[in-house]
Amino acid sequence: MTKTYDVVGIGNALVDVIAHAEDAFLEEMGVERGIMTLINTDRARELYEAMGPGREVSGGSAANTIAGLAALGARTAYVGKVKDDQLGEIFVHDLTAQGADYFTPRAPKDHEADTGRCLVLVTPDSERSMSTYLGVSEFLAPSDIDEIQMARAEWIFLEGYRFDGPDSHAAFAKAIGATKRAGGKVAVTLSDPFCVERHRDAFRTMVREGADMLVANEHELKSLYQTDDLERAMALAEAEVPITACTVGPGGVHVLAGGARVHADAVATDVVDVTGAGDLFASGFLWGVVTGRDWMTAAQMGNVAAAEIISHMGARPEADLKALVGKVAV
Amino acid sequence: MTKTYDVVGIGNALVDVIAHAEDAFLEEMGVERGIMTLINTDRARELYEAMGPGREVSGGSAANTIAGLAALGARTAYVGKVKDDQLGEIFVHDLTAQGADYFTPRAPKDHEADTGRCLVLVTPDSERSMSTYLGVSEFLAPSDIDEIQMARAEWIFLEGYRFDGPDSHAAFAKAIGATKRAGGKVAVTLSDPFCVERHRDAFRTMVREGADMLVANEHELKSLYQTDDLERAMALAEAEVPITACTVGPGGVHVLAGGARVHADAVATDVVDVTGAGDLFASGFLWGVVTGRDWMTAAQMGNVAAAEIISHMGARPEADLKALVGKVAV
Repeated sequence: MTKTYDVVGIGNALVDVIAHAEDAFLEEMGVERGIMTLINTDRARELYEAMGPGREVSGGSAANTIAGLAALGARTAYVGKVKDDQLGEIFVHDLTAQGADYFTPRAPKDHEADTGRCLVLVTPDSERSMSTYLGVSEFLAPSDIDEIQMARAEWIFLEGYRFDGPDSHAAFAKAIGATKRAGGKVAVTLSDPFCVERHRDAFRTMVREGADMLVANEHELKSLYQTDDLERAMALAEAEVPITACTVGPGGVHVLAGGARVHADAVATDVVDVTGAGDLFASGFLWGVVTGRDWMTAAQMGNVAAAEIISHMGARPEADLKALVGKVAV
Repeated sequence: MTKTYDVVGIGNALVDVIAHAEDAFLEEMGVERGIMTLINTDRARELYEAMGPGREVSGGSAANTIAGLAALGARTAYVGKVKDDQLGEIFVHDLTAQGADYFTPRAPKDHEADTGRCLVLVTPDSERSMSTYLGVSEFLAPSDIDEIQMARAEWIFLEGYRFDGPDSHAAFAKAIGATKRAGGKVAVTLSDPFCVERHRDAFRTMVREGADMLVANEHELKSLYQTDDLERAMALAEAEVPITACTVGPGGVHVLAGGARVHADAVATDVVDVTGAGDLFASGFLWGVVTGRDWMTAAQMGNVAAAEIISHMGARPEADLKALVGKVAV
């Protein structure tokens, strides 16, 4: 099958509601710092009522990666479920306006759940703490996976967060099968150490049996392999997956591929909001991979894209990402 | 009646959808630069589909002013109509989370129109061009004006844009009457030169007969008095209104009050998006007035608040406005 897409992403379609908050507010409201917590409708209402004025920016981890790739010029599509409501309209607009294809059927107006949203509280240290109401994004089912679309992808990019939800494992299995049968490759991002905790066995199986690329940060990788030793975790990943990219926050990224290992320093910037750092690293890194760059260049492209996203509020690119990433040598 | 509010604002309740755009896009789509154009549903859909990825920030001219006043510590309320939909929820949250009261009944889910939105296109020169779909904000009626609330206000603040709409003049008349009978004062902002053009006679009557304060920029004031001579326009305003504040963009502001005139220079800043400059000038200036500062101090407070808002995307304060304005010498 002709490969009409460089990357097709699958994940939770969410709109981020971003607000500044003091550490005391997080404590008072019982919000866990620096991670993603799943919340129900009642908790979403309670937290939203208590938090300060916000701004809404489309989000969703894999959707951020796809938006970044589209901004870089990649041929992309995204699969994730929204409802036929105003936030759903915003999500779809922002993604397609960036140049990505989106065909997932929207849940009808009378669906019990709404388009999902992520309440992002940014503390004075620029760290983000996320409380996610999945809404209809949780109901992505195998029937939402178009096998022809998967077959047209060089890469599919699977978001770890999407492991939460009744039909998600089956949906991922269908997507992986269709992609592999057509000679495509599978990239997996682990998303969050507690998400790994919830689904470790399924992650381990998928990574070992189906992943051609693994994108994770150090905490997620250590959680996956249940070790406190990052070197050991990276060695285990290297033995199972052809390409592993392990970000280490301000320490940059390690890439282990083809028996070699490279390290690329993070790009210095004024950090405003770390939301989307991992997602946009994946955009830049995948762009390097699909355009045939060497590992060091791809890693640097990832770091440049991550630096852009953490320099402002929100996890969708604001500056000319193509120009910034284009400055990376080669 | 006890004055429990420093300022109550009345205007169009809108959510801004903000995106960067090139000048060529404005030309291609027929968007007029630098002003506010009213659009219908079809045009809103067409323009939204064509524009780039956006971010949503609550807006509405008088609502921005009230949000700024609330951030400064003023006792405030806002009157403007939204629908019981997701954008309406966002609008109400952002205003009340800032500390303003809001009691206007929301239009029901089955109302033909949705919560209003303003498509804000920011060009590389940081100028904003606005296309507004008024939605249910157009239907603010006299029945939405609570005379007891008006009687509790030291000041009411009327947005010129709200002159567009079937029942708006009657709603304003009711608000002015209730305020004045209780010894309160009326501030009017002209909003936009073309808005003045559409409603000049009504504006002239209201300014002459009911306004205790007029806030306008040079273009609006010249349009009101149909002259190209700013000095003449200011003299005419001075003869009719006890307090006139006329902003002149980067030239700062002239305040004419009590037979005297002061000029305060604009505050230097990196301009990112001029949306809300006039609205937040009004916040700072009114805050100076209600706290009994001299005219120069009030004018400088307005300029500081305006400088904060144009230093980022969106017309709601992001920095600690109270601290910034507090630095203005008394």
